[in-house]
Amino acid sequence: MSLKLFYAPGACSFVPHAMLELAGAPFEPMMVKLHKGEQRSAEYLALNPRGQVPVLVDDGEVITQIVAILLHLDAKFPQAGILPASGLARTRALSTLVWMNNTVHPTFTHVFMPQKFTDDEAAQKAIRAHAVQTYRGLLGEIEAMAVKASPWLAGDQPSALDAYALTLLRWGGYAGIDPTTLPATWALSQRFAALPAVARVIERERLQLNVYQPPTAA
Amino acid sequence: MSLKLFYAPGACSFVPHAMLELAGAPFEPMMVKLHKGEQRSAEYLALNPRGQVPVLVDDGEVITQIVAILLHLDAKFPQAGILPASGLARTRALSTLVWMNNTVHPTFTHVFMPQKFTDDEAAQKAIRAHAVQTYRGLLGEIEAMAVKASPWLAGDQPSALDAYALTLLRWGGYAGIDPTTLPATWALSQRFAALPAVARVIERERLQLNVYQPPTAA
Ligand SMILES: N[C@@H](CCC(=O)N[C@@H](CS)C(=O)NCC(=O)O)C(=O)O
Ligand SMILES: N[C@@H](CCC(=O)N[C@@H](CS)C(=O)NCC(=O)O)C(=O)O
Repeated sequence: MSLKLFYAPGACSFVPHAMLELAGAPFEPMMVKLHKGEQRSAEYLALNPRGQVPVLVDDGEVITQIVAILLHLDAKFPQAGILPASGLARTRALSTLVWMNNTVHPTFTHVFMPQKFTDDEAAQKAIRAHAVQTYRGLLGEIEAMAVKASPWLAGDQPSALDAYALTLLRWGGYAGIDPTTLPATWALSQRFAALPAVARVIERERLQLNVYQPPTAA
Repeated sequence: MSLKLFYAPGACSFVPHAMLELAGAPFEPMMVKLHKGEQRSAEYLALNPRGQVPVLVDDGEVITQIVAILLHLDAKFPQAGILPASGLARTRALSTLVWMNNTVHPTFTHVFMPQKFTDDEAAQKAIRAHAVQTYRGLLGEIEAMAVKASPWLAGDQPSALDAYALTLLRWGGYAGIDPTTLPATWALSQRFAALPAVARVIERERLQLNVYQPPTAA
């Protein structure tokens, strides 16, 4: 078995990255520098024509999409607790996972890359401002889940949900949202980051958990 | 066992709707009229605070999110072929399914409801125009998959992918994209629509498969 994960520091690829370490899976971390545009190199596009991370390569087979990668790893490493094993607990965790992936994550894309949605600069500003408000509301939904976490979002084991929550909260800092104003999610993220396996990923990606910068007085 | 599906005619809820009929599962179809705003009624918001279809209620348990509903049904009705049973075929189908759900579907939301992304009317127009172009490209990616379908998108059995492809192609008509310009997807959708179980769903939702209207000369 040979596993390679193509990831970018701080990107959504953190989710499978953290799960691979938590599973204790042997894998080769392959860094892609998004700010240098490496995702658009001919070599990378040959791997993933959509020019995105994450990509998992399992014995030469290329797998894209966070949720598909997580379910693939979950089938391979059933003891890792990437998601609850079965029943309603699994369905509920999947529901939250895909919502983070199809709603919260794309909302942040509107904040971070409004140019994906129009070439018009005034419209880009309008999109960004609107998305920041929407994103705040969505982090509020995650906060309500974190308040009820016992102790992790999917129950008694850390799972992909905690990794995604950490990532989405971290991104909030770039959107001008102070993570400490979402105290349950912030506490959960700090607890998750402190797990030895996750700490290794944070070290490898050189992540700062709180990237929020308070507005400076003029 | 009691299953209820809250669906809206022509909406993304078509995907689980078609899968329930294909599975031969006993279920109660519950229509929600989106154009009348029923998804924002107090009663519906008590069921799904996000005010969206689809919702599956399984013995009183409320399940939201297409992908989670499909995986829940897949675990309940493993013979139905909602997704390939295991291995790389399952991973690949999941990758396409979640991409349809997190990328193609939200792009159509930008065409159909640009007001979700800004209150500024000029910016809404810019978003819509850009999204129509993006959507055309994404349907092109589905067309490339349909060309290779053998004979269905996930292999030898009709699956959730075919139901989603039909829905996304149908929506293209509203975006001014003639489905017959994507001949493999159009043929696949017609074949899928003709399956007796799917025909019952199309009848219940009163769907017209091709909603494209050629621009009229002034
Ligand atoms: N739908 C994809 C989204 C992946 C995605 O958004 N990747 C971003 C990083 S968080 C990316 O690679 N962006 C690079 C770019 O767009 O140039 C998934 O779920 O895997
Ligand atoms: N992320 C949700 C999206 C569901 C969705 O987009 N539902 C649309 C219909 S296709 C809806 O209910 N729209 C009503 C509204 O926004 O008012 C899922 O995958 O289930």
